[in-house]
Amino acid sequence: METETKRLGKTPSIRRMSLYLNRLKMYQEKGIEIVTSTDLAADIDVLPVVVKKDLQLVEPPTKKRAGYLVSGTINAITAFLGWDKPKLAILIGVGHLGSALLGYRGFSALTFVAAFDTDVKKIGTTIHNIPVLNIRNLSEFLKKRKIDIAVLTMPSEQAQATVDLLMQEHIRAVWNFTRAKIHVPPHVALQREDLSAGLAELSAKIKNNQ
Amino acid sequence: METETKRLGKTPSIRRMSLYLNRLKMYQEKGIEIVTSTDLAADIDVLPVVVKKDLQLVEPPTKKRAGYLVSGTINAITAFLGWDKPKLAILIGVGHLGSALLGYRGFSALTFVAAFDTDVKKIGTTIHNIPVLNIRNLSEFLKKRKIDIAVLTMPSEQAQATVDLLMQEHIRAVWNFTRAKIHVPPHVALQREDLSAGLAELSAKIKNNQ
Repeated sequence: METETKRLGKTPSIRRMSLYLNRLKMYQEKGIEIVTSTDLAADIDVLPVVVKKDLQLVEPPTKKRAGYLVSGTINAITAFLGWDKPKLAILIGVGHLGSALLGYRGFSALTFVAAFDTDVKKIGTTIHNIPVLNIRNLSEFLKKRKIDIAVLTMPSEQAQATVDLLMQEHIRAVWNFTRAKIHVPPHVALQREDLSAGLAELSAKIKNNQ
Repeated sequence: METETKRLGKTPSIRRMSLYLNRLKMYQEKGIEIVTSTDLAADIDVLPVVVKKDLQLVEPPTKKRAGYLVSGTINAITAFLGWDKPKLAILIGVGHLGSALLGYRGFSALTFVAAFDTDVKKIGTTIHNIPVLNIRNLSEFLKKRKIDIAVLTMPSEQAQATVDLLMQEHIRAVWNFTRAKIHVPPHVALQREDLSAGLAELSAKIKNNQ
């Protein structure tokens, strides 16, 4: 296990991986077999040195003095993220954000199996072809189906109680879109998503430009 | 202007600012006047040294050997991000994600003034009390109202054409939730939001735990 400081230092690189994947797949569709760090850098608005450092993490196949092999680099990133096997997910809380995530087409490696809610008007319906089930049946469902990731989009106040239940059913990864600080055991992967973080970044850029 | 490398190095710190704000406001509500970096670090799951480094950016008021003054640090972060004046925003594309953002209560400094869409069923309605207007009236609207930020949640294919129109009307900041790579002049602040970036981070943590 790496130390936290080390891990934090790599966070921006890891966050850019899905962008690299996206761009590399566009090159692949166009039949382009080799791409330079300069091209990729221009595509995602960073310096070439950043691309080189980022991609070192995944040890991509290169052709000397020519660049990265597109198809091999796609495979390298996919393997690095563990996206070679699709991750099965459930989503809890089918409000606007939950619905948006269920229909989001950018998650190449995430497959939603079911969504859960407390609202009887939503239970029994499907959203983007994903069934909405009664939250009361969550434990029972998890005893039958192996789920990799639980995505939390319910009201913040209910987050920890739901997470406690998820832990009892041995869920190993939680993607938290609520504002709640939730506690999980150390062997559980936890990712907090804060939409305000992007607004903070944008705001800092606005101040920089003034 | 800082160099890009420098700016990139600060990105994770800036992204954490809204979390600090959130936690500090919770302390303030409880009547707590001083907080240590250790407390804040535990709250947001980073090391105390990270908190210290992050908050150095905003030059927070401290009390020697005791910690950060809660209220003063809230003000310092708010000023650093330019959130002392609420930013007026429009949103373009009222799908699930757009609706979710219009109703998101976590944006302390963002006020949506109007949303725009092409769908006649949506035009003329309100979502979370925000009027949905015809995209055809976007230019006219922007000539009358001063808007700080345009939030893009429309289909990717339409993103650049809309941005070109926004630029004609002198919009200075764009928050892009689409998968499109869009081009803006250098004086315009551009923030790309990639929900897959969080999934990449979570996936890397899952692999780390295996």
